[in-house]
Amino acid sequence: MAEGEQVKNKQIIFKDYVSGFPKESDMMLKTSTMGLKVPQGVKGVVVKNLYLSCDPYMRPRMRDFRGSYVEPFTPGSLYSYSVDVMQPVVGCGVAKVLDSGDPNLKEGDLVWGMTGWEEYSLITATETLFKIQHTDVPLSYYTGLLGMPGMTAYAGFYEICSPKKGESVFVSAASGAVGQLVGQFAKLLGCYVVGSAGTKEKVDLLKNKFGFDEAFNYKEEKDLDAALKRYFPSGIDIYFDNVGGEMLDAVLVNMRLCGRISVCGLISQYNLDKHEGVHNLVCLVTKRIRMEGFLVAAYFHLYPKFLDTVLSYLKEGKISYVEDIAEGLESAPAALVGLFSGRNVGKQVVVVANE
Amino acid sequence: MAEGEQVKNKQIIFKDYVSGFPKESDMMLKTSTMGLKVPQGVKGVVVKNLYLSCDPYMRPRMRDFRGSYVEPFTPGSLYSYSVDVMQPVVGCGVAKVLDSGDPNLKEGDLVWGMTGWEEYSLITATETLFKIQHTDVPLSYYTGLLGMPGMTAYAGFYEICSPKKGESVFVSAASGAVGQLVGQFAKLLGCYVVGSAGTKEKVDLLKNKFGFDEAFNYKEEKDLDAALKRYFPSGIDIYFDNVGGEMLDAVLVNMRLCGRISVCGLISQYNLDKHEGVHNLVCLVTKRIRMEGFLVAAYFHLYPKFLDTVLSYLKEGKISYVEDIAEGLESAPAALVGLFSGRNVGKQVVVVANE
Repeated sequence: MAEGEQVKNKQIIFKDYVSGFPKESDMMLKTSTMGLKVPQGVKGVVVKNLYLSCDPYMRPRMRDFRGSYVEPFTPGSLYSYSVDVMQPVVGCGVAKVLDSGDPNLKEGDLVWGMTGWEEYSLITATETLFKIQHTDVPLSYYTGLLGMPGMTAYAGFYEICSPKKGESVFVSAASGAVGQLVGQFAKLLGCYVVGSAGTKEKVDLLKNKFGFDEAFNYKEEKDLDAALKRYFPSGIDIYFDNVGGEMLDAVLVNMRLCGRISVCGLISQYNLDKHEGVHNLVCLVTKRIRMEGFLVAAYFHLYPKFLDTVLSYLKEGKISYVEDIAEGLESAPAALVGLFSGRNVGKQVVVVANE
Repeated sequence: MAEGEQVKNKQIIFKDYVSGFPKESDMMLKTSTMGLKVPQGVKGVVVKNLYLSCDPYMRPRMRDFRGSYVEPFTPGSLYSYSVDVMQPVVGCGVAKVLDSGDPNLKEGDLVWGMTGWEEYSLITATETLFKIQHTDVPLSYYTGLLGMPGMTAYAGFYEICSPKKGESVFVSAASGAVGQLVGQFAKLLGCYVVGSAGTKEKVDLLKNKFGFDEAFNYKEEKDLDAALKRYFPSGIDIYFDNVGGEMLDAVLVNMRLCGRISVCGLISQYNLDKHEGVHNLVCLVTKRIRMEGFLVAAYFHLYPKFLDTVLSYLKEGKISYVEDIAEGLESAPAALVGLFSGRNVGKQVVVVANE
């Protein structure tokens, strides 16, 4: 527990494991107190959280399943004997250092990385934090464009898809935190790019803001195979998959010979107790397709190069980034839950405090 | 039509498109006549067929579907007005040249490649034939170990699986034409190798003849996931998939981080009108798995190297190969159909004639 001046600290608690779609009521707000000094001898930092990131991978963490690359959230129900010891939800965020026991960080530094869904956090795994050097961009971008989702788009597209100029690229959940960037990377490389999204507003964004060649609302398509054939009469070279399920099945039959599928996420499946079956895997053989999953954590050695590239693009006006900003920690549960009904338009961020 | 001396030519005709499991009665025997000289000006060869190969990929050719890498067989039913013009089934085989209009081939040469299911064939696509140079091995091996299935095992294992010494390798349909060789390649590299097959006899072969570390009868396992956990308590690095479906689903949850799946075939699915769904593709993401389909046709540039390697292994007694020999062209339909119930033990060959 941090020491020094005690302040009130609002926190979002994850109540219990969830099946089906998560609801706001699966989380709750509680107020505890928190010291703003790092305890003596601890190599940690006390931070004030500024922006929190809502990301699809947080849904699998609401399940009681330990075989994956991240542990489940600790449900508050485990501590029902005392609300005081319940731990907040954890996720990516941008924060300001208030006190530091780590020689690499000092008071006033801005950082991004794993933090708590609360106003103030004591972070001991400081080696996982990135110090923010470039502050001439919106700080919230370090939850998206310049943070984990941006790095995901970069690694997933350039490292997994082996893209070449002139190829045909399809991106699902294309207006999301990752998808909007993948599409713009592909356009900058000279690819033909089509995205799918779930509302007219998002489709308009894809075409008018992000410069996709085409975009469609998958909810308005009775036959996804027919929709893909309309936009890709000669087939798809690269599919950047954010959704899995039925769309993946339709894509498989529309892939070209030697196509590549980068499996980034399966948001369409995360709320199902049993994932839908994918029936067209025979296409992997008949079309010699490579399909590869990845986790961004394996690619952070590329972060400096990524940051240089994307900051340049941004400053030259070559890429845009759209965020959906929810105001106040209290709005965080609704913002997170909204990801799974596609309520957000662009990267979902929660503002906890302005600097 | 070939010229010269006319001989009787027994042929196996594919009658009509098939749904469900193919039956012997989906093919029929007919006898036509055939000249043994290549017509003047034709760059082809007339061959006497010696051995024919029964391969799983022939099942999809019995369907009326043109979107794949091979065309469907031409059903005899298209020529119901005259049995005389019906074309035989085509497949890989070993044959002896009787007459040649191609300067690269001469009378008496032995070749392997695509031929007809008949006693004598006129082959015009001579560029697809391989001249057999090494005859100090059973000639039938050029339908299996030294032919297309052998090359499939070689390319699929070395080129797709990126195998390393000490890794854990699982092979399904492991006693088949391809699987038996994949397992032996993996053992020679110093891997831990487990195979699955559908009878006790085949399981015994895997362990006692091919030197697999372990093997199991998948038909006797109620829970494939549990079976895989028994043999791979620390998980699977490489899965060489010959079957698809339920086994693939169970493998996915038992893969290790950064595992590789080479998708060679899906024999468990070929007789279904709609392929079974695979539900565990989320493991591609959480375990960073690469899953890649391939077709042997893309790797024939490696054939000389493959042949050197495998002939050396064979002569040094480092590998074995088991064939299931059916005698006579008349037995070919039953032999082919038997593949899909797993009746064959080892590579299924049909002897049409001895040299």
